[in-house]
Amino acid sequence: MSNYDQLTAHYQTINHFNHAQSMLGWDAATNMPSGGNDSRSKAIAELSVHIHRLSTQSQLEEWFGNAQQESLSTEQQASLREMKRQWQQATVVPEDLVQAQSIAGSKCEHAWRTQRPENDWVGFEKNWKDVVALSREEAQIRSEALGLTPYDAMLDKFEPGTTTASLDTLFSDVKTWLPELIEKALQKQQSESIILASGIYSTANQKALGLDVMNLLKFDFDHGRLDQSVHPFCGGVPSDVRITTRYDEKDFVQALMGIVHETGHARYEQGLPSAFAGLPVGEARSMGVHESQSLFFEMQIGRSKPFISHLSRLSADAFNAHKDPVFAEANLYKIYTQVKKGLIRVDADELTYPAHVIMRYEIERDLINGIIEHTDVPALWDEKMKASLGLSTKGNYKNGCMQDIHWTDGAFGYFPSYTLGAMYAAQYKATMLQTVDIDAAIESGDLSPIFKWLSDNIWSQASLHSTDQLIKRATGETLNAAHFRKHLETRYL
Amino acid sequence: MSNYDQLTAHYQTINHFNHAQSMLGWDAATNMPSGGNDSRSKAIAELSVHIHRLSTQSQLEEWFGNAQQESLSTEQQASLREMKRQWQQATVVPEDLVQAQSIAGSKCEHAWRTQRPENDWVGFEKNWKDVVALSREEAQIRSEALGLTPYDAMLDKFEPGTTTASLDTLFSDVKTWLPELIEKALQKQQSESIILASGIYSTANQKALGLDVMNLLKFDFDHGRLDQSVHPFCGGVPSDVRITTRYDEKDFVQALMGIVHETGHARYEQGLPSAFAGLPVGEARSMGVHESQSLFFEMQIGRSKPFISHLSRLSADAFNAHKDPVFAEANLYKIYTQVKKGLIRVDADELTYPAHVIMRYEIERDLINGIIEHTDVPALWDEKMKASLGLSTKGNYKNGCMQDIHWTDGAFGYFPSYTLGAMYAAQYKATMLQTVDIDAAIESGDLSPIFKWLSDNIWSQASLHSTDQLIKRATGETLNAAHFRKHLETRYL
Repeated sequence: MSNYDQLTAHYQTINHFNHAQSMLGWDAATNMPSGGNDSRSKAIAELSVHIHRLSTQSQLEEWFGNAQQESLSTEQQASLREMKRQWQQATVVPEDLVQAQSIAGSKCEHAWRTQRPENDWVGFEKNWKDVVALSREEAQIRSEALGLTPYDAMLDKFEPGTTTASLDTLFSDVKTWLPELIEKALQKQQSESIILASGIYSTANQKALGLDVMNLLKFDFDHGRLDQSVHPFCGGVPSDVRITTRYDEKDFVQALMGIVHETGHARYEQGLPSAFAGLPVGEARSMGVHESQSLFFEMQIGRSKPFISHLSRLSADAFNAHKDPVFAEANLYKIYTQVKKGLIRVDADELTYPAHVIMRYEIERDLINGIIEHTDVPALWDEKMKASLGLSTKGNYKNGCMQDIHWTDGAFGYFPSYTLGAMYAAQYKATMLQTVDIDAAIESGDLSPIFKWLSDNIWSQASLHSTDQLIKRATGETLNAAHFRKHLETRYL
Repeated sequence: MSNYDQLTAHYQTINHFNHAQSMLGWDAATNMPSGGNDSRSKAIAELSVHIHRLSTQSQLEEWFGNAQQESLSTEQQASLREMKRQWQQATVVPEDLVQAQSIAGSKCEHAWRTQRPENDWVGFEKNWKDVVALSREEAQIRSEALGLTPYDAMLDKFEPGTTTASLDTLFSDVKTWLPELIEKALQKQQSESIILASGIYSTANQKALGLDVMNLLKFDFDHGRLDQSVHPFCGGVPSDVRITTRYDEKDFVQALMGIVHETGHARYEQGLPSAFAGLPVGEARSMGVHESQSLFFEMQIGRSKPFISHLSRLSADAFNAHKDPVFAEANLYKIYTQVKKGLIRVDADELTYPAHVIMRYEIERDLINGIIEHTDVPALWDEKMKASLGLSTKGNYKNGCMQDIHWTDGAFGYFPSYTLGAMYAAQYKATMLQTVDIDAAIESGDLSPIFKWLSDNIWSQASLHSTDQLIKRATGETLNAAHFRKHLETRYL
């Protein structure tokens, strides 16, 4: 057996344990009674240790060295590159640091769950200090190994190839036009009247509606399912993708669009090439590209007028409320495109969302690069929130810098993925329009030309190319924020 | 760290992987879409290989040798004994035989799923020949290692300590009185009229009823749940027990009592001592003792008159059918104690069930010991079925020797557990009656005195003692079929 084949077999073995871990995580979020938590946590931790051990096994170095000398096809070379990338990611950080981070992150997150509602920055800061220090240590180690700045080395975990230089350019451009666009959109919407959801929308009916919408979006129910969890997510494995949502019986709006969003993630996973199943090269390219699929579904398809027309019909059917003006097409469109400045990122609309992401990016970049200290964060947050959305968070930590779980857990470098995804999605649409009549396809109820484009250009390509190459192959150019701007201006002006 | 402590840590590690495997199995039976089967099978197989590797690791022999010299408490000695028992079970059979059995069993079972409905004995026999030959090989190896007869060595996997000698005595006694008792019961019931279920019983209502009954039986919903699957089972882990049932909307009878049965298994698991969680000594004692719990719940509690009274009330409530004579106490009792000779074990009533088990025992005992050949089975089946229940299965393989999955898969030695369980359950009741007014407790709706007895005597004892010791501690004597006979005579005469 060649060393390349040995590596392939080894990563498929790792994949089987990842399968187990992923499903145990899904079950813990959807089904598990609280009393099962202790033994489940131990089982998941054991799997993590085992996966880490397999991922850092001493033979791998030799196999990688030899495999590079073997005669490989282009695809095999890509496969080798991605296996090596995962191996380097796993081996570069010493095990005791990983463990220290896991403990500090768990401690900080656990306390945060009660500190956040109590607005307890002082308590939070004591735990968070360690999380930040350990993340900086990690960034330093990765920085030296990869020859990148500390923050770029953290970005590389989620968005390989994306750098501070490129993000600074992209985001500083956005900052030149976004505030004005938000003001104009608000002014335009001021005179509009919206009828908000005010009925009781049973969970059973909302679920039935969600399944209808998933069918319209060609979710493959032979390879996945829909369930409920406190925090919606897309989990499972490509051959069995588990998406979740949460239902609020007083409002169908969030759950419905949440399902559209998660279906985008799911179809990416379901559409990954089976030829590379279980191998790193067969996985989704990056967090940003993943988000580009969920946001293509949510923003480019889901909030389009012809799709809102389907939602209008399907939801009036589901709730048996054909005369309720809430479900009228024009009203539903207003609901789903309403712009509102707010403090909370996860509640933000499409237009103000990038403002939330950019300020987090700027803060975490400087924090990881050692330009600022963790105690500087609340004041910076307040300052940036005032500058971008005109809102004060002075003393309001819980709806300020304590609102997200990402930093609590030490996931620095993740936030940019959200806005990168929105930008990629807008760029796909601009290209897709050259060959596909998107609105007509949506209107007809047969969206397959849209999905074919996504499958050909994104899903089937998995991690065969770098993100830049992937985007360039799909759209003829690397990421260009002009498409995003144009999309927002078209929708909101 | 002492070698005993090392063994303890090692078996806890194994337990974490068992947790993963158990939950993946549960999910495959309850949630998984069919397209997920391939990757799930691979993940489960990978876990099996890993668990087997851990269970047969070369250091273990030395650790067991040294641990036996260490100073251990009585409980630690029991723990060591059970770890060693599992180690011996895992190591005694060579890996290539295990693999050959797994392949032959899968092949035979897969083909059986279509051969059975087609009554294709000739096709089945071709595959089954290999399954039987490999099981005999396994029995021979175990026989030499354990110093037992081949069949006793197979029994030891499910019922450690139970021997052909004891089963022959027990079952030949049963055969002296069971046929007459069946005839008398049938005669008695001939004049009775039963109103059978004939409505439509929605799955939602049946599930709600099932949950009510589980509450009455003090199922701990913080450590478990109820779901649906094609074949009802009790799975999961002690801190998170997953029971399942299947609903027939034309009949609530099977699903309802099925839930009572699985709740018995579940409460045993939930009641295992947390001090030994994750260790072999903390597991259920045997398959027969497990069945004694499900059958205590189903036969001793579930089919008692005061419990049927609860079922009458709860089911009339659930189906909103208070005037339906089906749900009248006396009628429901008749439904649940109706005796009927039939060909199918899983459909058999309490009274005819042992006849099904005993004939399977006699056949598999002689088959594994080499007294008969696998081609002799259909004729022997026909002969024994005629002798015990007066029914012919000549040429009727699908409802004869091809009806069960056990032999198809090579699970020889399992069948006796069912009737051992029924016998243990009757014996517990006889003892329990000395200190607990069982009927009064059930009638009151507070069954905790019953559960306290089971917990004190069975659940909390896990595998600290041998089965014989366990039964003797609980009831003052080893297994005595007279209690079972008395129970059946009291109920059916």
